[in-house]
Amino acid sequence: MEENSSQYEEATRNNYMGGGEAEEERDPESNSLQQPLLLKRNRTLSSNPLAIIGTKVSHIESLDYEINENDLFKHDWRSRSRVQVLQYVFLKWTLAFLVGLLTGVIASLINLAIENIAGFKLLAVARYVKEESCDCRLRFVLIMVDAAVAAVLVVGFAPTAAGPGIPEIKAYLNGVDTPNMYGASTLIVKIFGSIGAVAAGLDLGKEGPLVHIGACLASLLGQGGPDNYRLKWRWMRYFNNDRDRRDLITCGAASGVCAAFRSPVGGVLFALEEVATWWRSALLWRTFFSTAVVVVVLRAFMEYCKSGNCGLFGKGGLIMFDVSDVTVRYHAMDLLPIVIIGVIGGILGSLYNYLLHKVLRLYNLINDKGRVHKLLLALTVSIFTSACLYCLPFLAGCSPCNPDLGEICPTTGRSGNFKQFNCPPGYYNDLASLLHTTNDDAVRNIFSTSTPKEFHPYSLFIFFALYCILGLITFGIAVPSGLFLPIILMGSAYGRLLGLAMGPYTNIDQGLYAVLGAASLMAGSMRMTVSLCVIFLELTNNLLLLPITMLVLLIAKTVGDGFNPSIYEIILHLKGLPFLDANPEPWMRNLTVAELADAKPPVITLCGVEKVSRIVEVLRNTTHNGFPVVDEGVVPPIGLPTGASELHGVILRAHLVAVLRKKWFLTERRRTEEWEVRQIFTSVDLAERGRKIEEVTVTKDEMEMYVDLHPLTNTTPYTVVESMSVAKAMVLFRTVGLRHMLIVPKYQATGVSPVVGILTRQDLLAHNIISAFPHVAKSKEREKGK
Amino acid sequence: MEENSSQYEEATRNNYMGGGEAEEERDPESNSLQQPLLLKRNRTLSSNPLAIIGTKVSHIESLDYEINENDLFKHDWRSRSRVQVLQYVFLKWTLAFLVGLLTGVIASLINLAIENIAGFKLLAVARYVKEESCDCRLRFVLIMVDAAVAAVLVVGFAPTAAGPGIPEIKAYLNGVDTPNMYGASTLIVKIFGSIGAVAAGLDLGKEGPLVHIGACLASLLGQGGPDNYRLKWRWMRYFNNDRDRRDLITCGAASGVCAAFRSPVGGVLFALEEVATWWRSALLWRTFFSTAVVVVVLRAFMEYCKSGNCGLFGKGGLIMFDVSDVTVRYHAMDLLPIVIIGVIGGILGSLYNYLLHKVLRLYNLINDKGRVHKLLLALTVSIFTSACLYCLPFLAGCSPCNPDLGEICPTTGRSGNFKQFNCPPGYYNDLASLLHTTNDDAVRNIFSTSTPKEFHPYSLFIFFALYCILGLITFGIAVPSGLFLPIILMGSAYGRLLGLAMGPYTNIDQGLYAVLGAASLMAGSMRMTVSLCVIFLELTNNLLLLPITMLVLLIAKTVGDGFNPSIYEIILHLKGLPFLDANPEPWMRNLTVAELADAKPPVITLCGVEKVSRIVEVLRNTTHNGFPVVDEGVVPPIGLPTGASELHGVILRAHLVAVLRKKWFLTERRRTEEWEVRQIFTSVDLAERGRKIEEVTVTKDEMEMYVDLHPLTNTTPYTVVESMSVAKAMVLFRTVGLRHMLIVPKYQATGVSPVVGILTRQDLLAHNIISAFPHVAKSKEREKGK
Repeated sequence: MEENSSQYEEATRNNYMGGGEAEEERDPESNSLQQPLLLKRNRTLSSNPLAIIGTKVSHIESLDYEINENDLFKHDWRSRSRVQVLQYVFLKWTLAFLVGLLTGVIASLINLAIENIAGFKLLAVARYVKEESCDCRLRFVLIMVDAAVAAVLVVGFAPTAAGPGIPEIKAYLNGVDTPNMYGASTLIVKIFGSIGAVAAGLDLGKEGPLVHIGACLASLLGQGGPDNYRLKWRWMRYFNNDRDRRDLITCGAASGVCAAFRSPVGGVLFALEEVATWWRSALLWRTFFSTAVVVVVLRAFMEYCKSGNCGLFGKGGLIMFDVSDVTVRYHAMDLLPIVIIGVIGGILGSLYNYLLHKVLRLYNLINDKGRVHKLLLALTVSIFTSACLYCLPFLAGCSPCNPDLGEICPTTGRSGNFKQFNCPPGYYNDLASLLHTTNDDAVRNIFSTSTPKEFHPYSLFIFFALYCILGLITFGIAVPSGLFLPIILMGSAYGRLLGLAMGPYTNIDQGLYAVLGAASLMAGSMRMTVSLCVIFLELTNNLLLLPITMLVLLIAKTVGDGFNPSIYEIILHLKGLPFLDANPEPWMRNLTVAELADAKPPVITLCGVEKVSRIVEVLRNTTHNGFPVVDEGVVPPIGLPTGASELHGVILRAHLVAVLRKKWFLTERRRTEEWEVRQIFTSVDLAERGRKIEEVTVTKDEMEMYVDLHPLTNTTPYTVVESMSVAKAMVLFRTVGLRHMLIVPKYQATGVSPVVGILTRQDLLAHNIISAFPHVAKSKEREKGK
Repeated sequence: MEENSSQYEEATRNNYMGGGEAEEERDPESNSLQQPLLLKRNRTLSSNPLAIIGTKVSHIESLDYEINENDLFKHDWRSRSRVQVLQYVFLKWTLAFLVGLLTGVIASLINLAIENIAGFKLLAVARYVKEESCDCRLRFVLIMVDAAVAAVLVVGFAPTAAGPGIPEIKAYLNGVDTPNMYGASTLIVKIFGSIGAVAAGLDLGKEGPLVHIGACLASLLGQGGPDNYRLKWRWMRYFNNDRDRRDLITCGAASGVCAAFRSPVGGVLFALEEVATWWRSALLWRTFFSTAVVVVVLRAFMEYCKSGNCGLFGKGGLIMFDVSDVTVRYHAMDLLPIVIIGVIGGILGSLYNYLLHKVLRLYNLINDKGRVHKLLLALTVSIFTSACLYCLPFLAGCSPCNPDLGEICPTTGRSGNFKQFNCPPGYYNDLASLLHTTNDDAVRNIFSTSTPKEFHPYSLFIFFALYCILGLITFGIAVPSGLFLPIILMGSAYGRLLGLAMGPYTNIDQGLYAVLGAASLMAGSMRMTVSLCVIFLELTNNLLLLPITMLVLLIAKTVGDGFNPSIYEIILHLKGLPFLDANPEPWMRNLTVAELADAKPPVITLCGVEKVSRIVEVLRNTTHNGFPVVDEGVVPPIGLPTGASELHGVILRAHLVAVLRKKWFLTERRRTEEWEVRQIFTSVDLAERGRKIEEVTVTKDEMEMYVDLHPLTNTTPYTVVESMSVAKAMVLFRTVGLRHMLIVPKYQATGVSPVVGILTRQDLLAHNIISAFPHVAKSKEREKGK
């Protein structure tokens, strides 16, 4: 099931070990040689298709977004009635609707659970603070239980549920399938793990997990249920392909962002700018429909909760961090602080990326040691977080309430801006206002406008420093975690600090400085522009902020890009996911695909009517997923010389296995008629995947029989001539979403094979090519061209 | 210079007429056989590359977005120093900045001019109404002068400046170049024509023209100035290609929308959803930068005008139609009117598309008769418009002012909501409030919130009916016109009418009904979703409207799609622009590219070292733009049989002409070294386009000499195997942005040509294929598959 590119290594190994037992060898957990961090690269053009998913090393597979045009598909497609086409369209929209609906409902329930659990906890803490000074024990116990539940859930059941999941979704839409990433167990653990982790007060957001939850829902709906209990509905068969699943997962990701930030347009743009590799206009519309449904669900839920039916659920409306009451009146003079915010955001963002990369490498080493280590790491971080959150406010002094503001001051417990904590009545502790609350409320408090004297610089600095540390050490632990909120918290703190410093020289409100700081750090770390801008617009509901937000984002992204790639790219690389970049490297223009093909073992082709024994041998001894089908010595149409060879197309491993399983064998070497194959195979049979050659037993007599591969061969594969440069081939491969690309010769003569080679994703990855062609890297250094 | 596909017809004709004089024959104005409306299609797979640009029939050309990787390009690319790469990147951003800056400045000046001219005119009219009842003469004179100036400008100087220009931009980004579309004269006429037409009070918007102005600016900047006065700057040479020009024009289009609606994110999304065919992440960012600059410029301009330096320029801020003061409080009950608005919007929108199509066909026949007819048509429409605008308010009664509202009532002249017109003091004429004002102010008035009794249903109905008629008859006249505002005016009227009707049953403000009505009609006619939604969000600054706007847009688009394609597609089709759709037709799966190639005359190939006489002959007798280069009987690398033929690549017509002009001829048949060609040609020479074979004179002696085409040949053309289905080939052609696609044989034998055919845009257009393969259309009918 792996890629062609790993053929040589695997084939050699299998030859020594004897075919069938290769499967055990591939189990990554048992293979201690394969260090997750430094996935081995050798000098031939191949690399193992291994990647770190969650906290585990797994085998990954490429997806096939190409339409597999074989005779059966064509017949099935031709025989679709108008009703069936309408069914398909209707179902597509229904699924998009369901993705939005379920994502909205689950997001609402997660919010409800988090706010209730956290609220109860914080109320308890507040009560204990009042009764006896500095009794940290109760909160410790509560938080440890919380964090432990989250960690145990993740570590124990679904390793793929750790982390945000966004890089894996990005990889999926690029064409890399990560196993167990979108299963029912992942979904459930992600939901409860996320509730546990966020309610525990860890420096984590529920945003990333929500995106993953949306994608899981989409994937489950698309395939008709969890793996073992699939709905075998006739209508669903049209969705049993990678293309429709990809579209649905895009809808799911957009719905997740929308549910996280209550930002429908931002969700669509996030999916477009950050997640999706391949996009088309119709998808824009469907994604938009899903997010519209999410917003309606969220709104209905909030209307319901307004009447007090939701326990401790807060008052937040559709706008999460509303700053629309501030009139923005800025002048040329204010340009300077805006530029400063942008530059600092870019520098801090790239520094954060750099440090997080180091921390993640370290954590991967720890996590690799086993479950106990994972659990201990998660618990250590939780305890450290709790200790800081609880004890640091004692460092801050008490401030008198300002009666002019009209807000309740001081407040005790969860809701409200001015926390009393250890202060006498009429006073509030500003650091406690930020720390003794859920992360969402902390952001709301730090964004609060028209309260210029609410926070001391000293408290803000402690807050900033604390969240810098927490943001670095928390992300890598084995719990579902989002990156958005930690970065917003950090960024808003330094933004507000800068606002305080600029105080006398600026007309912009401090709350807006906090917003801009958050935006700049996001852009500095995640390097998104339009989607972030719209998300911030929808978060804060202040359209007049738009021009300055845009400038800040552009500056921060530009500065950040000068130092390192975006955090998602760093994580993708760290996980070893074979992500194909949009832009080919410059040196790829100097290399032809023929040179790539030469660096690989010769391509294995099959005949149009092939012996069973040969098929079995090829399937057992290679891990390729597609084989070119070539007919030798055919009689071409009149006008062409005889003895020509003909490229018929590509046949997929899955279809070969299906033939062997159905035992559709011929006693003589002949071509079949179309009706013969249609009696045996339906397009539903061919859509089935995941069957292995090891499951098939073929008798000795059957080995001598033949199979006509013609009707199952995809006759329209994408091809490139061998003189094509790697740069152009890669653009083609990525834009069309291929799994295999055939290389045809530029020479035309009898005896020349019509297929020179076959290219897969792994062959086109820059670092694989460099390791196989070291001189390319050297000439790249010498020329310093970019 | 035309496409390959027109080869047969042209070649035959040229054979009869003798090469060189074909140019006159191609002048479309003089060829009375070519009816603009019914561009002739014949039964072979070809169609004339003719299209209606503005009000004239012109020859169009395909663009080449592929990187032409020949030896010279590769050398030039390898020898680029790091400094030159930085220059290129820096220049790219500078140009994006300049596009934004200039678009912003020009948009501000257009606004200033329109508001001052219209304001002066309306003040004069108001004075005359007061003095003597119903003296229509003055206004007539004023308006006729205005409209006449606009019409004369357009008809006389720049026929391509008529209409909105958005379809042509869409076609450009799809790969179709329309001549004189982005020249300096078009730009100037568009600016002044647009000012004239809008100030004249015609039912036209400046939005479409602004998009075109942005694109013109981008194109002019990218090529270093107008055609005759180009900046021959060394830095600019890297921009002398279709790819960079395409990116710049995308930035220009986005800037134009941004300047029109003061909607930066909406502008980017409009470019993405509606205009662009090809998109990548980096472009998103650059487009966004341009629109950010536009917004900053607009803002600075408005700040400047606030101090009263701009004459009659209005008070509008960055938000054009602000409805943010309304709190949206809607419940499940309000879903019904929302659905109704959406459905009506979809029906009316598609009806509008249908009727406009008919009107445009009629107008094309009139416009085709000559300049006088065009002018008369434009004048008739202007006079009708003026008569209606001026006289209809007399039909409406006077309403008493509501002193609670706090707005000035009644007002006289241009600014303000409640127009006095012919009413006594303390009263206002509601129809005059809508008609005696600029279109922008009319929208502002009809969107005005918390004024439930301002407009009588009777007046609104008159307004609606009037703008339905004007919207249909105005668009096609020969002035620069936008579609956005007429549709907004129509839609807002019926929305507000519906709001009035729903009055007692709904909680939504009537102003919001007007907004939703406008949105629904836009979606029903233009079929955009996300970009419209964001544009409306940025127009109205009310984020809470978002969910209902989304629903209305989705419903309206769905309903509209049930009837006919979007208005832009209709116009594209009407103009005969060869636009490649994103989705292939279903029947294209049953056709292979080999069948397409068979329907065309055999492909003309050149040898690697070719005789001059043959090159001249081929260039004179065909209109192809690219020729495959094939070496016969070459000695291939060891291991391959001798006598093979080799596909070397594709050479462009422009490069062949360059060789002939430079007279780079060899006395014997030999291959040259790389340094030889570099002494003669630079990459600047090869980037030059537009030279014709007719300009070249070759002596008889030179005719017998040879040219080595190898170093100038693009060695990495995109190819498809002959068994590829047309559907997949079309997807490839469009997604990679090709001009030529080679078809290679699936048979491999000595004597088989390595190139079976060559495909161009015209070959892949659905209606061209259907006319060449009538049985395909029949089977399509029979199967009713879609």
